[in-house]
Amino acid sequence: MKVSQSTLFLFLVLLVTNSSAQTWIWFPGDYENWLGNQMNNRRTERGVSIPVQWKLDGHEPLMIFTKTVELDEPEEIEVSAEGEYIVTIGWRIKYQGIKNSVTKVTVPAGKNEIKIKVINYATVPALFVKGKTINSDESWMTSPLDSRYLSKNMKHPDSPSGYYMNAGSGKLNDPNTPPSKFKLPTKPMEYVETKEMEGGTLFDFGKETFGFVKFHKLSGTGKLTLQYGETAEEALDAEHCETFDIIDIPSEKSDFTMPRSNALRYIFVAAENAEYDDVSLLYEYAPVEYRASFKCNDEELNKIWEVGRYTLQLTTREVFIDGIKRDRWAWSGDAYQSYLMNYYMFFDLETTKRTMYTLRGGDPVMVHLNNILDYSFYWFMGIYDYYLYTGDVAFLKQIYPKMESLMDFVLDRRNERGLVEGLDGDWVYIDWFDHEVDITGEVSFEQIVFCKSLETMAMCSEILGIDSESKKYTALAKDVRSKLSDFWDEEKQAFVFNRKDGVNSNQITKHANMFAIFYDYVSSEQKEEIKESVILNPEIPAISTPYMRFYELEAMCSLNEQEYVLSEIKDYWGGMLQLGATSFWEKYNPEHEGLEHYAMYGRPFGKSLCHAWGASPVYLLGKYFVGIKPTKPGYEEFEIRPVLGGLEWFESSIPTPNGDIKVYADKKNIKVKATEGVGTLIFKSSKQPEATIGDVEKIAENEYRIKIKGNAQEITIKYKAL
Amino acid sequence: MKVSQSTLFLFLVLLVTNSSAQTWIWFPGDYENWLGNQMNNRRTERGVSIPVQWKLDGHEPLMIFTKTVELDEPEEIEVSAEGEYIVTIGWRIKYQGIKNSVTKVTVPAGKNEIKIKVINYATVPALFVKGKTINSDESWMTSPLDSRYLSKNMKHPDSPSGYYMNAGSGKLNDPNTPPSKFKLPTKPMEYVETKEMEGGTLFDFGKETFGFVKFHKLSGTGKLTLQYGETAEEALDAEHCETFDIIDIPSEKSDFTMPRSNALRYIFVAAENAEYDDVSLLYEYAPVEYRASFKCNDEELNKIWEVGRYTLQLTTREVFIDGIKRDRWAWSGDAYQSYLMNYYMFFDLETTKRTMYTLRGGDPVMVHLNNILDYSFYWFMGIYDYYLYTGDVAFLKQIYPKMESLMDFVLDRRNERGLVEGLDGDWVYIDWFDHEVDITGEVSFEQIVFCKSLETMAMCSEILGIDSESKKYTALAKDVRSKLSDFWDEEKQAFVFNRKDGVNSNQITKHANMFAIFYDYVSSEQKEEIKESVILNPEIPAISTPYMRFYELEAMCSLNEQEYVLSEIKDYWGGMLQLGATSFWEKYNPEHEGLEHYAMYGRPFGKSLCHAWGASPVYLLGKYFVGIKPTKPGYEEFEIRPVLGGLEWFESSIPTPNGDIKVYADKKNIKVKATEGVGTLIFKSSKQPEATIGDVEKIAENEYRIKIKGNAQEITIKYKAL
Repeated sequence: MKVSQSTLFLFLVLLVTNSSAQTWIWFPGDYENWLGNQMNNRRTERGVSIPVQWKLDGHEPLMIFTKTVELDEPEEIEVSAEGEYIVTIGWRIKYQGIKNSVTKVTVPAGKNEIKIKVINYATVPALFVKGKTINSDESWMTSPLDSRYLSKNMKHPDSPSGYYMNAGSGKLNDPNTPPSKFKLPTKPMEYVETKEMEGGTLFDFGKETFGFVKFHKLSGTGKLTLQYGETAEEALDAEHCETFDIIDIPSEKSDFTMPRSNALRYIFVAAENAEYDDVSLLYEYAPVEYRASFKCNDEELNKIWEVGRYTLQLTTREVFIDGIKRDRWAWSGDAYQSYLMNYYMFFDLETTKRTMYTLRGGDPVMVHLNNILDYSFYWFMGIYDYYLYTGDVAFLKQIYPKMESLMDFVLDRRNERGLVEGLDGDWVYIDWFDHEVDITGEVSFEQIVFCKSLETMAMCSEILGIDSESKKYTALAKDVRSKLSDFWDEEKQAFVFNRKDGVNSNQITKHANMFAIFYDYVSSEQKEEIKESVILNPEIPAISTPYMRFYELEAMCSLNEQEYVLSEIKDYWGGMLQLGATSFWEKYNPEHEGLEHYAMYGRPFGKSLCHAWGASPVYLLGKYFVGIKPTKPGYEEFEIRPVLGGLEWFESSIPTPNGDIKVYADKKNIKVKATEGVGTLIFKSSKQPEATIGDVEKIAENEYRIKIKGNAQEITIKYKAL
Repeated sequence: MKVSQSTLFLFLVLLVTNSSAQTWIWFPGDYENWLGNQMNNRRTERGVSIPVQWKLDGHEPLMIFTKTVELDEPEEIEVSAEGEYIVTIGWRIKYQGIKNSVTKVTVPAGKNEIKIKVINYATVPALFVKGKTINSDESWMTSPLDSRYLSKNMKHPDSPSGYYMNAGSGKLNDPNTPPSKFKLPTKPMEYVETKEMEGGTLFDFGKETFGFVKFHKLSGTGKLTLQYGETAEEALDAEHCETFDIIDIPSEKSDFTMPRSNALRYIFVAAENAEYDDVSLLYEYAPVEYRASFKCNDEELNKIWEVGRYTLQLTTREVFIDGIKRDRWAWSGDAYQSYLMNYYMFFDLETTKRTMYTLRGGDPVMVHLNNILDYSFYWFMGIYDYYLYTGDVAFLKQIYPKMESLMDFVLDRRNERGLVEGLDGDWVYIDWFDHEVDITGEVSFEQIVFCKSLETMAMCSEILGIDSESKKYTALAKDVRSKLSDFWDEEKQAFVFNRKDGVNSNQITKHANMFAIFYDYVSSEQKEEIKESVILNPEIPAISTPYMRFYELEAMCSLNEQEYVLSEIKDYWGGMLQLGATSFWEKYNPEHEGLEHYAMYGRPFGKSLCHAWGASPVYLLGKYFVGIKPTKPGYEEFEIRPVLGGLEWFESSIPTPNGDIKVYADKKNIKVKATEGVGTLIFKSSKQPEATIGDVEKIAENEYRIKIKGNAQEITIKYKAL
């Protein structure tokens, strides 16, 4: 067998990785949920902590880790755990462990079950085992139940049990840093400008950022007041700045770092009986890799892509949050967009999984995710995409029991027609509307995302081989899908907003209509009709949040309207840049002036100026201009449909699970290189194209196709853009 | 209106109680479950911690306490909480609280909702509020959900929600001692004898006891080994004593108290490079009131009653446990007997409620209580009795959602005939059997306790006015009850043990048969038949545990066989006393000799010598000799059926919720005095009796009845015992 150097290298890397495979393990979801909520609950608002406004689920306080080993000779292992623990081998051998200390345990030769029980209420029971052959990893089983009393099939005969699962882990490989001590890394950052003001000093860090403020050589006996601002105006407004801190000076003259990290570009510091030499910041960040790149002839667009990346970087923390100043919370609808952008940027799966677990919490399900009906559905849809982009079946297996119980909750609350409605206690959100909307009854948008969620359940149960479930969900999805046509208004060529007592309302908004387009729930003809009668129709209320503009532009892209989308991007996101934005905002209204831009919720600085959903261009450019998407799970197969959309040229690299796809396109040349999977490049050309490798196939008038092998060979195509 | 002095006094007491009513509050069940499991998990076995072997459920980490108040003028309140907290009044006023510190909050005049969110993972979120009119008590509402997103009827339209409930509390009224710091009280205790031995000193505390060993003026740099023993032999046996501690000497010369309390009568202390002046014990005890009394002419029986009381006192801790050396755990079957004994001894309801909450844990239910099928049913039956003895509807309302979800779990696991069977993962226990028993299929005993559990659900749902549920459970109970006759073997005059594939087995044990008697599930004729064909039939396997002897003797009592029962008590429990028992044992076999008495589970000192289920005489004497039981909830009505059963005389006082019933009986006189409720005294006499107050009514040949008013007046009856 002849292997290439790079394959050999990869092989060696895998080998090394495997032989030092011990990592902290826990009950899947419990740690992720705990960690995500530690972050959620660090939100403050004008000096007061604001815990999440939805149900906070705890973890299993007693966890049983088991592993059956067969040894030729006795092996000494080192056990560490977060929590009080006891190690049992077989029935008789017992070791007592002390919290956070290492216990040496000798596992006898022969076949033995190692059982380690860990109790921890405050933080999540976690385990680290290091031996010659025995190491903690996801091959260990975890359960809150003792195996003697555990039915492995507690729920359905053919379904994975949510109470006996392979351990969860998250690349925490240092035995001395247990999971509860995990912190995002920091690095020092200096301000770029400072200004003495009445009563204090204003520091400008030059751009939107996030971190721990540090005072150098702080002394005195008084106190410090810190007013944080995303703008200078906010930092200087004691009455209205959204976040501030007041601290008593620690007695000794020394460096002092604030205990909590904050969003800021500016800080105004007022010192009372206090002195300090200098101020700096410990920039706190998620250590994601910048795996994607994008460059084109349009410098404004390049800047938009970069600021989009920075916005996504800042809002990527322990989990994906909405905005770094506010709410600093994981919201399912916002996170769904972060997942999608992440696939075209960092391809960071740990944060994605942590966010999904945090949002979902535990059982029993008593309320929708974040209390919002639609947000339960975005969670399912996020898993659909996760599987499509990653092909990670192990995660599906772990999360499936939680999918089941959430879907059971949803199904229990359907109306007689089998459709969902907002019930007492549900928040039916969809979007912030600037006009009055009657949101009761059967809302078409909710049925669409419900249908997609049922399709997700059907897909996952089929992949996991749970036949009865896959049949059930396929039938349910089909049923809901067939009822979508009830909402179609033939005259208006649109899905109406809602339906009550069997009668369609007159309300129409863009939401259901645009989702129907890119979910392919309507025919090509209907799509074109919707484009004219809804999306481009000025009589239909305009969408005013970047949140839903994400989908509006996605719908237009999927209708091949890249030129329109490009001009919208330059207009809207370019507009923010022209106002000096260094990250993208929660909302932007070009008609506002001055301080109006920063107000929201009736508060002068209520608006978040670094909001994940503001970064959508990075997704739209990657998916619909560079044109890359998986067509089989984990990019086993993929499609590249480069579209210039008005640009002269672009050059981009998009990450795949274990590789990249690089695309260059101008009006005459397309260059493509992929390092895994099998792709199909589809493009339009007014002349017969020529490829350096492979056969170009004509598939329609002026449209061509060529297979791309993921072998890292660059293919160049000469063509002529239409 | 003329009121008696005692009524006036009671009125004043209530007034005073109400005006200083602030107490620590929490989500009902969460703290009880947490506290009970703190105790459960303090069990050790030969130096190693043994956590519970069932699922340990955590608490809600975020709790929202709300109270709507209407004030004429602003009121300042003092808020303390266990956990980080935030106080919100209306939408705008927010206060940040620091864990364990007092925050002063001004509630404005007018109508306002006070909302306090408390986060605590390590211990249970709890709240203490002190004001002029605003105080924390059970009128506050608790929910893990924000009221904005809370449907108050999440489960059934007519059922109390398990997620929006009146706060729980437990007489913890000191703002400076938050619930997690609650400790049972201790008092100093001296040993009665000491003996220098090779390698150390043996201390004898004179009787079975429990507490923290204290070393006076401990010094040195070495270590101490403590071997605990319920017998001297155990304390001296380094290899087999069930519990021991090895501690390094703290460096300073000072008094040192062991961190963990232990069961012991003896301690053997071996000191290595260590010196101490003396040893004593801090006896740790539940501060229960000794509300019952019993005295009779038989000194052995008096001693049995007293040792029974002491056994119950020792096993009454934060919750009712099985035994103080082992398992030191709350087991539902054992606790059920403690509840019953407690009603005839301490009438301590806090411990009863705490135990029920600890056993039940949280939701979702994944396994039976303690993993045991029958133990789920004892839990329901415990609530049946609780309501009968106390009339406490507020508790029923709080616990009902947990009853519902456990019963849903049970109902989901029935077979096609609607009966229960042990499924994969279930432990079908019933009793320790000395002979081989096939415990598969439909087991008659389990159907009987299942039926009683369904009757409990029917009763509670009716009391709470949940009509649909009460109808459902009444029908289910009726159905199971009608199927009990399937197990009846006409030829053998007995319920067979089990039934498989529609065929009754040949196995017969006493268990189902004796429960059918005192649950009145069979006719009077059948009861007599069962007595002869099963209970007194030497061919039916004898019962060997005091656990099931409890019910065997109860069945005999309910068949008016007090004389038989008295002789059994004197024989069996008297037998333990003759062997020097100072508390009653887990198991006793009169045929054993010497050290054989202490062995169990293959371990020389494995047997618990202080086991709650060993104390049953205190229940049997109170209920079937003194003859007192409530006939309407909370002793609103009650019955007294004094039976000498071979005694010359007895004198007893039995507690009722807010009073006592005192009974004296000899062969010629019965004296009765009750302080609440309305009673009926029923007794047998061979002559027409005479009463000092009231009319004696003849109800059968030689049987009479007289009404007793709970007015604290003593009634004396002259009669002639049969």
